[in-house]
Amino acid sequence: MIVVIKSQTPASEVQRIIQELHRYPVTVEKVVSNDKAVIGLLGDTTAIGRENIQQISPFIEQVVRVKQPFKRASLEYRYGEPSEVAVPTPNGVVTFGQNHPLVVVAGPCSVENEEMIVATAQVVKATGAQFIRGGAYKPRSSPYAFQGHGESALGLLALAREATGLGIITEVMDTADMEKVAAVADVVQIGARNMQNFSLLKKAGATGKPILLKRGLSATIEEWLMAAEYILAAGNPNVILCERGIRSFDKQYTRNTLDLSVIPVLRTLTHLPIMIDPSHATGYSQYVPTMTKAAIAAGTDSLMIEVHPNPAKALSDGPQSLTPGDFVELMQEIAPLAQFFGRGTKSAFTNATPNLAAKISSTVGV
Amino acid sequence: MIVVIKSQTPASEVQRIIQELHRYPVTVEKVVSNDKAVIGLLGDTTAIGRENIQQISPFIEQVVRVKQPFKRASLEYRYGEPSEVAVPTPNGVVTFGQNHPLVVVAGPCSVENEEMIVATAQVVKATGAQFIRGGAYKPRSSPYAFQGHGESALGLLALAREATGLGIITEVMDTADMEKVAAVADVVQIGARNMQNFSLLKKAGATGKPILLKRGLSATIEEWLMAAEYILAAGNPNVILCERGIRSFDKQYTRNTLDLSVIPVLRTLTHLPIMIDPSHATGYSQYVPTMTKAAIAAGTDSLMIEVHPNPAKALSDGPQSLTPGDFVELMQEIAPLAQFFGRGTKSAFTNATPNLAAKISSTVGV
Amino acid sequence: MIVVIKSQTPASEVQRIIQELHRYPVTVEKVVSNDKAVIGLLGDTTAIGRENIQQISPFIEQVVRVKQPFKRASLEYRYGEPSEVAVPTPNGVVTFGQNHPLVVVAGPCSVENEEMIVATAQVVKATGAQFIRGGAYKPRSSPYAFQGHGESALGLLALAREATGLGIITEVMDTADMEKVAAVADVVQIGARNMQNFSLLKKAGATGKPILLKRGLSATIEEWLMAAEYILAAGNPNVILCERGIRSFDKQYTRNTLDLSVIPVLRTLTHLPIMIDPSHATGYSQYVPTMTKAAIAAGTDSLMIEVHPNPAKALSDGPQSLTPGDFVELMQEIAPLAQFFGRGTKSAFTNATPNLAAKISSTVGV
Amino acid sequence: MIVVIKSQTPASEVQRIIQELHRYPVTVEKVVSNDKAVIGLLGDTTAIGRENIQQISPFIEQVVRVKQPFKRASLEYRYGEPSEVAVPTPNGVVTFGQNHPLVVVAGPCSVENEEMIVATAQVVKATGAQFIRGGAYKPRSSPYAFQGHGESALGLLALAREATGLGIITEVMDTADMEKVAAVADVVQIGARNMQNFSLLKKAGATGKPILLKRGLSATIEEWLMAAEYILAAGNPNVILCERGIRSFDKQYTRNTLDLSVIPVLRTLTHLPIMIDPSHATGYSQYVPTMTKAAIAAGTDSLMIEVHPNPAKALSDGPQSLTPGDFVELMQEIAPLAQFFGRGTKSAFTNATPNLAAKISSTVGV
Repeated sequence: MIVVIKSQTPASEVQRIIQELHRYPVTVEKVVSNDKAVIGLLGDTTAIGRENIQQISPFIEQVVRVKQPFKRASLEYRYGEPSEVAVPTPNGVVTFGQNHPLVVVAGPCSVENEEMIVATAQVVKATGAQFIRGGAYKPRSSPYAFQGHGESALGLLALAREATGLGIITEVMDTADMEKVAAVADVVQIGARNMQNFSLLKKAGATGKPILLKRGLSATIEEWLMAAEYILAAGNPNVILCERGIRSFDKQYTRNTLDLSVIPVLRTLTHLPIMIDPSHATGYSQYVPTMTKAAIAAGTDSLMIEVHPNPAKALSDGPQSLTPGDFVELMQEIAPLAQFFGRGTKSAFTNATPNLAAKISSTVGV
Repeated sequence: MIVVIKSQTPASEVQRIIQELHRYPVTVEKVVSNDKAVIGLLGDTTAIGRENIQQISPFIEQVVRVKQPFKRASLEYRYGEPSEVAVPTPNGVVTFGQNHPLVVVAGPCSVENEEMIVATAQVVKATGAQFIRGGAYKPRSSPYAFQGHGESALGLLALAREATGLGIITEVMDTADMEKVAAVADVVQIGARNMQNFSLLKKAGATGKPILLKRGLSATIEEWLMAAEYILAAGNPNVILCERGIRSFDKQYTRNTLDLSVIPVLRTLTHLPIMIDPSHATGYSQYVPTMTKAAIAAGTDSLMIEVHPNPAKALSDGPQSLTPGDFVELMQEIAPLAQFFGRGTKSAFTNATPNLAAKISSTVGV
Repeated sequence: MIVVIKSQTPASEVQRIIQELHRYPVTVEKVVSNDKAVIGLLGDTTAIGRENIQQISPFIEQVVRVKQPFKRASLEYRYGEPSEVAVPTPNGVVTFGQNHPLVVVAGPCSVENEEMIVATAQVVKATGAQFIRGGAYKPRSSPYAFQGHGESALGLLALAREATGLGIITEVMDTADMEKVAAVADVVQIGARNMQNFSLLKKAGATGKPILLKRGLSATIEEWLMAAEYILAAGNPNVILCERGIRSFDKQYTRNTLDLSVIPVLRTLTHLPIMIDPSHATGYSQYVPTMTKAAIAAGTDSLMIEVHPNPAKALSDGPQSLTPGDFVELMQEIAPLAQFFGRGTKSAFTNATPNLAAKISSTVGV
Repeated sequence: MIVVIKSQTPASEVQRIIQELHRYPVTVEKVVSNDKAVIGLLGDTTAIGRENIQQISPFIEQVVRVKQPFKRASLEYRYGEPSEVAVPTPNGVVTFGQNHPLVVVAGPCSVENEEMIVATAQVVKATGAQFIRGGAYKPRSSPYAFQGHGESALGLLALAREATGLGIITEVMDTADMEKVAAVADVVQIGARNMQNFSLLKKAGATGKPILLKRGLSATIEEWLMAAEYILAAGNPNVILCERGIRSFDKQYTRNTLDLSVIPVLRTLTHLPIMIDPSHATGYSQYVPTMTKAAIAAGTDSLMIEVHPNPAKALSDGPQSLTPGDFVELMQEIAPLAQFFGRGTKSAFTNATPNLAAKISSTVGV
C-alpha cells in the first residue's frame, strides 16, 4: 500500500503523517521524495482501510494498494517513477536508469592474470565504457573446469580499476564470500544460476552495495522480480536487472534465447534499471553486435559485453567474447545509435582507439 | 554441390558447362547470375568427385559441397549472395531483401467487412506501408470461434487493393484453397501452425507465388529452413521467412517470446529475406512499438504489424492490434530509424496522416 | 450446457424434453444414454436460464453449465462417464476405453514393401496386439527424405490386414487424401505436426471414422482438447488422444519428453480414451520397454509401439523401432502387468511366438 | 580412465598396481571391489597411453577411457556396476540402490510444529516408509512467504526421528548452514533451485553425508550429472538423484512436467540411485498416486511424497500434499506393485494403519 502526498506539502506535515502511519503494524518507508513524497506501507495491509489512512491528513492525495506480489520492486510502489542506481567509481558517479545515458560494462568472462585484465580494462576505458567485468569466482558446470582465481583475482580487478578509473562488476557465488567481494566490487553480480539462491539474495540485500541480478535460465519475469524483492526487502534499493538469455528448445545456433521483450514488459511492471547481456544470450561473438543494437533500440539502460584479448585462448567462454578490435568497432558503431535514442554520453565513445585495441589483441598472450 | 564460374566467362561456355553437368544423375539449376554465375547440383552428389567437375572447364573457379541439409535455402548455395523477392503491386514492384528498403505489411487479424478493411488499407497506404494483411481463412484454437469469412473475404481484400494500390498478404490453410488464395493474394502466407504441413508447403511451391513462411511455435531454425526448402525444392524461389515469437515457459506477460536473434543467425545460414511480426510475438499492442524498433535495429527486411480500426471490438486478436492512430505514430517514429540504418524508403512514411487515422478510429464500427 | 434426465424416465418424456429444447437457438445432442440420458445444448447458451430449462419437466434431474472451452470433449459434457471408441476389425470389434482391456498398436514407421509389412503384421498378430500401424504418407522434415509410398502403401496395409485380421492405423496429411485414407484405414491418424491443421480436423470430423489425434510437439493440453473438439463438433465422436512426447530444452538423450502426467490430468478433463506412444516420445528403442510399463501403470488405454524387421535398415525412424524379437519379449513382459491393473486381454499375449519373430528378424531384408 | 583388474587377483598385486599408478600425475581411486577391483584414474589422462598401463601387470584385464564429462558419476567409471547409498537410521540401515527394495520418503513440505511433524512421522512409520522429510529452511519465491523455522525445526525433526526411528531428509540452502543441517539430517537435500549452486555442492561433497540432489527446473541430464560430479569429486560417493519435474510450456494443469524417461536414460549413463518426487512434479495431490505407480513401473529406486495432516492449512505447498489417509491408501496400493517388480520390502507396507491416519487427519490442527 502506498500513500501519495500532495506536491508542496510542508515537510513537517509529511513527518506527522509518517508518525501516524507508524501506529499500524506494518513497515513504513519513504519511497520517492522529489517533487512528490510517496510513503510505502509493507506487511499485511489487508486489515487497513484506505479511508482510515486518507483521513490522517488533507495533504494525502491518494492511497493505493500495490497489487503485484513484488511490492517494493513494482512500478506502482514508486507511483510510476523509475529508480536509478548511482555507482561511485574513480572516474565519477555512473548512474544506471531510464533518464540517464547508456552504461556499458565490458570485460572478460574470468580474470586470468594481471596483464590481461589491465590491458582489457584499458581498451574498455578508451572506448568510453564505464565498468570492467571479470569473474573471480566462476560458476562452471564441470568441477574439472577452471573455477576462477578467487580472492587473488579480486586484487587484480582492483589493480585494473586503479589503472583506468573504471568501476568493477564481479560475481559472488557463496554467502561466505559476500564480504570479500563487496569490499572490492563496485557492483556485485548475482549470476543466473543463483537467481533463486535466497540465502545469497538476503546477504546481497544486507550489504547495501549495488547488485546486478541476472535472470535465471528458466525464470519467469515474476520470479525474477520476486528475487529482486528479496534484495529490496533486506533494505538495499540498488538493484539492476540483467537479461542474459533464457533456455528454449533450440540451442543449435545460439546458446540461449535473448528475450528482449522483457524491456517493454519490465517498464510496465517495475521501476528498476535494466541491463542486457548479448554475449551470454547468444553465446557467439558474431551475433553480439546485432543484438547490442537491438537492445539499444529496445531501450535498455545498460549493456554487458564480453571482451577478451585473445578469445581463442580464453579459459572460459571464448566463443562469445569479442576481440578488443571488434569491441572498439562496436562501440563506435553504437555511439550514434545511443545518441539517436537520446541515450548518448558526453564523451560518447568518441575517443575510441583502434590502434590500442589492435596492439593488445596482438601482444597479450593469456 | 555448387559450381562457381569465373567472372566474365563467355555465356556459351557457361552453357557448355551446364550441358556437361547434365550428364550426372542430379538436378542442375542456375542459381545466381549477376556478375558471377553459380550452378547448383541437387540430389545425391556423394559419388561425384569435385576434381571431375573441376576438369570440365578452366572457367570453373570452385566446386563447393553444400554442407547444410537445407540445400537451396542455404547461403552457401548462392555463394553468399542474398536473394530478393520482388512482388508486383498496383503501386509498383515491392522488393523484400537485404539490399532494399524496409517493407511494412499491416492490417487486421481478420477481414471482417468491406468498410473496415478498406478503411484500414487507406491508413496503411497513407503511412507509406506497402502491403495490407488480413485473414480470410483463420486458424483458431476453438471450433466455436470466428473462422474467417473465407472466399468472400478474399474479394474484400481485392477491393482494398483496388482502393489503395497496396499489395495483399493473406493466409492459406488448406491445399484445397491454394488456387483460390493464390489467385487474389500477392503474397501467400503459411501460418505458424502449418509450418510443417508438408502437403501445403509442396502446393505452395507449385504455385510460384511469393510465400511468407511463418516460423512454427516450437520450430527450430533448422526445421524452419527445411520447411522453406520444401517450397524451394518444388521450384518456387520466392520465400520470405517470418519470425512471430516462439513458445517458452513464460506466457504471463507476453503471448510468445520474440526471438530476434534469428536475424543474425539466419544471415549466416540463408540468403532468404526476413520479416518480423512483433504483434503475434508479444500479443499486446503496448509492446509492439518497442519490439518494432528492436527488429529494425537487428536488421529485419520487413515488418508485419496488426492494425484494427477498433481493437476492442475485433473478432480476433484485438489485444495485439494497434489503433490506426497508434500505427501512424509508430510509422512516423520508425521512419528516421530506418533511414539511420540505410533502410529508409523514398516516400519514407512522411505523408502520414494522423487526421485520417483519428477519423477512422472514431467512425468505423465493426 | 447439459440437461441430466432422471433414471427410468419414460422414453417418450425424454423425447418431449428434447423437442422443447429445440426451441432454443442451440444445437441439441443426446450425449449419454445408458442408465441415464444426458442431453447437450451447444452454442451460445449464455442467455438461457437454467431455471427455465429445469421447468420443462419434473424428470430433469439437473441442468449444468459446461465451463470448459472444449464442450463436447469435456468430462462434464458426459456427466463423468468415459466414452469408448469401438473399431470393427476382421478379428472382431476392438474397443478403446477406460473400462476395456489394453489395446496395442504396433508396426513400422513407414510401409516400405509388401514383404516387410505383412511379416511385421504377422508378428504383431502373434503377440495378441490388435492393430498394425504403418505410414503411407510420411511427414518428414526434409523434402529430400523418403516421403512414404502414398496410395500404393495403403494397398499393402490392406494386404497385411487380410493376412492377419488386424485393424489398420495410418496417417493422413492432406485434406485431399482423406477419402482415400479413410477408405482403407480402420483408424485414421492425425499426426503431431498437423494437430492444429484445422482444415484437416474438420475433414476428419466429417468422415465419421475413428480418429487418432496425436498431441502437437508444443501443444498445451487445452489446445489438444480444443483440436479434438474440432472433430467432435463436426459430428464425429470417435476420437482417441495420443501423447507422443513434447518438446523440451533437453534433447540430448531423448528425442522428446514423454509427458505421462497427461493421463491423470486428462481423466479429470475429458471422457476420451488415451493412447501413449513411447517410441516417438523417447526416440530410442532401448527406452521403449521401460516407458511402456510406466504408461500401463499410469493407466493408459492403449499403446503405439514401433516395430521393424530390421531397424538398422529402416527408411525412417530406425533408432526408435524395436526388432520383432524385442517386441515379442516386451509383449510377454507387459501381459502380467496389464493383468495386474485389470487391463489384461482374454488372449493376453500368451501365444507369443519368439521363433517367428527371430525368423522374421533374420530373413526379412528391407 | 579406469583400470579393470581380473577376478581373483591377489590383494598384494592390486596394491602393487595402485602403487605403480600413483606415479602418474593423476588421482588414483579404488572404485569397485566386490568380485572385481576397478581402479579409477582422474585428472588429465590424455597423455597416458593405455598400453603403458596395461604393461604394469598381467592381472590387468582392461584399460578403458571414460568418455563422459561426468567421470565419477558415469556408469563406465564403475564398469557397469550400480552404486548404492546405505543410510543408518534408528530402525536400521536403509539402502538406496537398484538391487534393493523401494525406499519411501514422506512428510510435509515444511516442519511447522512439533505436533504435526511427530504425528506425520507416526503415519509415515506405520506405512512401512523409511524416511521423514520436512523443510527447516525453505526456498520460497517470495521474501514475504513463510521461510521455514530454521534451526529450531531441525530439533523438531530429531524429535520425530526419536519418536519413530525413521531417518530424516531435509534441505540445506546456504553453505553457512551445512554443518548444522548435516549434524541432524541422515540425508541432506540440495533443492532444485540450488542444483548449480556450486559452492553448496562442494560443501556437500566435503561433509561425506548422503546427499539427495534434486534436478534443476531446466537442467539437462548432463548438467545434473555434472552437479553430482561436484559432490563425488569432493570425495563423497553418497549421492541420490531426484527427478522432481521440469519446466515446460504448459503449466495450466500441472506445476511441472515429470520426466520419467530419466530413469531408463540414467541407467545407461550413471551408477547412482534414483528417486522420483511426484508431489513437486505434478503440484496437485490428485495426480500423485498415478504418477507414483508409473515411477515404480519405470524402475525408480525410491520415492519422495508429500504428506500433511491438514493440507488445506499447510504453510507451504498444501495443494500437492496427500492427507495421511490418502497416503496410507497409496502405500497399500503400491505394496503389491513393488512386489510385482521385485522391489517389495520385508515389512512391505502391510501393517498400515488407516485408523491412525484418519485420527491424525481429524485431530491435528496446524
